[in-house]
Amino acid sequence: MERQYAIGLDYGTLSVRGILLDMESGEEVGVESFDYPHGVVSHRLPDGTEIGQDYALAVPEDYLEGLGKVIKGLLKRCEVKPEQIKGIGLDVTSATVIPVDDKGTPVSMLPGFGNRPHSYIKLWKHHGAVKWSDRMEEAARERGEEWLPLSGGKIRCEMFIPKALETQAMDPEVYRKCGAFLEVGDWLTWYMTGVCTRSMSMAGGNSLYQRGSGYPSEEFFKAAFPDQEPVTRKFRGTMIPLGRRAGRLVREAAEAMGLLCGTPVASPMVDSHAAVVGAGADRAGDMTAVMGTSACYLMNSHTGEGIPGIYSSTYEAHIPEMFGYEGGQSCVGECLDWFVSNCVPSACEREAEEKGISVHALLQNKVREMEPEAWRLMALDWWNGVRSPLMRPELTGVITGLTIHTKPEEIYRALMEAVCFGAKGIVEAFCKGGHPVERLIATGGIPAKSPLLMQMLADICGMEVQVCRSKMASARGSAIMGAAVSDGTEQSARALKDWIRKLGSPAEVIYRPDYLRRGIYEARYGQYCRLADYFSSKPADYQEDKS
Amino acid sequence: MERQYAIGLDYGTLSVRGILLDMESGEEVGVESFDYPHGVVSHRLPDGTEIGQDYALAVPEDYLEGLGKVIKGLLKRCEVKPEQIKGIGLDVTSATVIPVDDKGTPVSMLPGFGNRPHSYIKLWKHHGAVKWSDRMEEAARERGEEWLPLSGGKIRCEMFIPKALETQAMDPEVYRKCGAFLEVGDWLTWYMTGVCTRSMSMAGGNSLYQRGSGYPSEEFFKAAFPDQEPVTRKFRGTMIPLGRRAGRLVREAAEAMGLLCGTPVASPMVDSHAAVVGAGADRAGDMTAVMGTSACYLMNSHTGEGIPGIYSSTYEAHIPEMFGYEGGQSCVGECLDWFVSNCVPSACEREAEEKGISVHALLQNKVREMEPEAWRLMALDWWNGVRSPLMRPELTGVITGLTIHTKPEEIYRALMEAVCFGAKGIVEAFCKGGHPVERLIATGGIPAKSPLLMQMLADICGMEVQVCRSKMASARGSAIMGAAVSDGTEQSARALKDWIRKLGSPAEVIYRPDYLRRGIYEARYGQYCRLADYFSSKPADYQEDKS
Repeated sequence: MERQYAIGLDYGTLSVRGILLDMESGEEVGVESFDYPHGVVSHRLPDGTEIGQDYALAVPEDYLEGLGKVIKGLLKRCEVKPEQIKGIGLDVTSATVIPVDDKGTPVSMLPGFGNRPHSYIKLWKHHGAVKWSDRMEEAARERGEEWLPLSGGKIRCEMFIPKALETQAMDPEVYRKCGAFLEVGDWLTWYMTGVCTRSMSMAGGNSLYQRGSGYPSEEFFKAAFPDQEPVTRKFRGTMIPLGRRAGRLVREAAEAMGLLCGTPVASPMVDSHAAVVGAGADRAGDMTAVMGTSACYLMNSHTGEGIPGIYSSTYEAHIPEMFGYEGGQSCVGECLDWFVSNCVPSACEREAEEKGISVHALLQNKVREMEPEAWRLMALDWWNGVRSPLMRPELTGVITGLTIHTKPEEIYRALMEAVCFGAKGIVEAFCKGGHPVERLIATGGIPAKSPLLMQMLADICGMEVQVCRSKMASARGSAIMGAAVSDGTEQSARALKDWIRKLGSPAEVIYRPDYLRRGIYEARYGQYCRLADYFSSKPADYQEDKS
Repeated sequence: MERQYAIGLDYGTLSVRGILLDMESGEEVGVESFDYPHGVVSHRLPDGTEIGQDYALAVPEDYLEGLGKVIKGLLKRCEVKPEQIKGIGLDVTSATVIPVDDKGTPVSMLPGFGNRPHSYIKLWKHHGAVKWSDRMEEAARERGEEWLPLSGGKIRCEMFIPKALETQAMDPEVYRKCGAFLEVGDWLTWYMTGVCTRSMSMAGGNSLYQRGSGYPSEEFFKAAFPDQEPVTRKFRGTMIPLGRRAGRLVREAAEAMGLLCGTPVASPMVDSHAAVVGAGADRAGDMTAVMGTSACYLMNSHTGEGIPGIYSSTYEAHIPEMFGYEGGQSCVGECLDWFVSNCVPSACEREAEEKGISVHALLQNKVREMEPEAWRLMALDWWNGVRSPLMRPELTGVITGLTIHTKPEEIYRALMEAVCFGAKGIVEAFCKGGHPVERLIATGGIPAKSPLLMQMLADICGMEVQVCRSKMASARGSAIMGAAVSDGTEQSARALKDWIRKLGSPAEVIYRPDYLRRGIYEARYGQYCRLADYFSSKPADYQEDKS
């Protein structure tokens, strides 16, 4: 029999990546990527219009161009015929919002709207909607809305609804023209299938949608924003549960993508959620750590009450018939990169160059040689504020224990350790919330780049860390969803789980905790927590004077 | 009339510097210096004997060689005849201890003692005597010794007596051979004059000598160290008050120095104390800040009770008929140097090179351009522990407010500011102790190197900072003392004060506080104090686990 493939597309902030997955062997046969020509739009729109400071936009045409180029590229590179592609899945960065008209065309692509920032895609890191998220949180707390605890008790400006509210308030014309506010994944699915659907798993986390009760009620919006129509009236589309088929390719899209009409398309996912699927983390108690610039910690559980400091709890966010929780750490690789870019003397750079290794590698080699009695520094990993569990974006990084003998590698080590302590704090928040972590699976760029950090994470958390073999866990997870919709029959949760088990990436390395260092790390984690308590309880002392 | 000169010698840690001062005009006619061939001995004695970790020794021959070379060099360079030299003064780093035999010969220079570390000069930064300083403090506290509060309630291992006790306990043979433990200044004076004298001003601070009551009593030593003879039995020499003549040059020394026999020699001083004289800081309420690697803050007052956290209070420590107080800051220039050596990326180095300026200058230019709203960081200047007012050598430096946007110049600025806040803390300790600072005079290397730091100091302390014109305030102070002993009659305090007023260096620049920044700095100083309170009240949390 001819080999059968599924395609997984992973839409990131700067590029879209695609993989071709062998549906039988699980082999990742080919990879293709496409950088968005406009990148992140944060100063000027494509037509030159200047935009405000807190904007982080994207251009819909880039996403469509990537769709065609990546898939055609994959087929060509792997010498695969269109009929061998049995299903398509896709994932997109979360809370990436686009206003489209009644036919699914992005408002920014309509004549006369190219100069209006609110007509474009608002990326996850667009921070213009603070006013609206603050008001929502305040009103939800006053009204005792039951969905508030499920997002950790906080409404963040990065979420879907505040971004839609911002558009409604700031550009009424765009709002009037808008037939639907969609996650970009849902808009791309509409483009491919010709049907307006909504991914329930995507709606669950950052859009506050709950199975059963739906979105926050119209009463809530009327109370919170009395002068506006409830923004949820623009939330169109049939809800499609996790991993079910959203539709089949229509002619126009099929041609643009070089595929057959009718090819099944799975309901889209959030990128980090797709990594859970790609990593095969399908059991209750599995935690998938997606570690890169920042990190997400995704957890499966049979129960779904909210946990303080954990972003969201959503039924079938990533694994069928389970609740998916999400915790976030705002600065992981970025903290180490900041250090290397801003604090490393030229002597280190020269030494790295002489040895033919990166500065990161040089510093990590030095860190590896340090014995515990040389661990004199302690840091707080708050270079980007704190997401889980404190949810305090205004907090900042701290280094203590500095002396005139302190060397760069000591500071670097303190930052690595603080990142791991931050991760342990999230693991502990889950445990305290009644969801002990049974298995820790790491994916993303960091596990491959820094075995030392992985070992430290295992030592500090006191548990094994399994590193996922696939270097593209999200794209792989989307491809698995594509495979799962390939047979064309009504899908059961059972069948979906079988696909995840069959095609989820195996572990490549397992880091086992060094129990000799356990006591030292326990004590040091206690110190980290006391330091964190102090700086989180009195932030204003170091920001501005309160007296 | 032929011009008349006084010579001032300033014995530092690595070199001795001498100046020739015109006794009429106050002009510094010539400068000469000599680096000690053996530098600081911290790993091996000159014969190759390895020594312990906490040792910081010096070789007496280096000091004698410097004496001859500097003075002969000065005379030659300035074309001055020996008979034009009317007096000599000298100053030496404080608590620099040497054991000599009954004739004044250093024990290390006696046959068979060259391989014994305790026979050498112990420098101020020799840290081997912790055991003995701890025991002294404990015993003094138990016995309620009245001299304890006068040294801030602390006995530090750097002091004179603990270093002598260490030798007594660690090398009984050196102790037996030792006819006297002397300050190096007193030994050099003995060498020059042939008479064993002791400078009362040097004995006052770090040797715990009090006018009237003398050294701590034999009863105290018998109680604290019952198995040893009281170490004060080896403290020989006639006490000579501040700025009085200790003697006149004897033939051997006069020949070695190229001067006339009989030239008067003033009683030696501590180097930082000599800077007070050199700066002409002769009024009650004057504070002289000697700022370099670390800093000393020296204050004159009519009364002499102890101040918590201030090292010492000694009658006539630096100005006649006044009490001299001394506060210390352990890390000033060294903290900024540490940053430039360990934390500055090559991009900064390149930029400095392109502009043809130092990295310090580059960073300070950037700091100068930062508006108050960009002052987001806060640091504690504890890179070398804390001297005044906390007297806590184990404390360490802290940086807060770090984010991924933080630039090197922001950290550098926080360190500069923390150094100034540390200085303000010392000014405040004096005020709280009933000795308000009326005038702040800065000397040392930093005022010349960093006008920006001086301006910050003025802004933060809310008072004018006068920078001394002389770049060698200590050597100038010693030369003033040399001038004061030149007339050969009985000296009055009145006459000595007239010499100081006549020859003290005038101010070169006066930094006036920017009152627009006053409120901002007041608030920030409050933040610094709260941070300092926290980290000084719970140090063990960040050093080791207490639980």
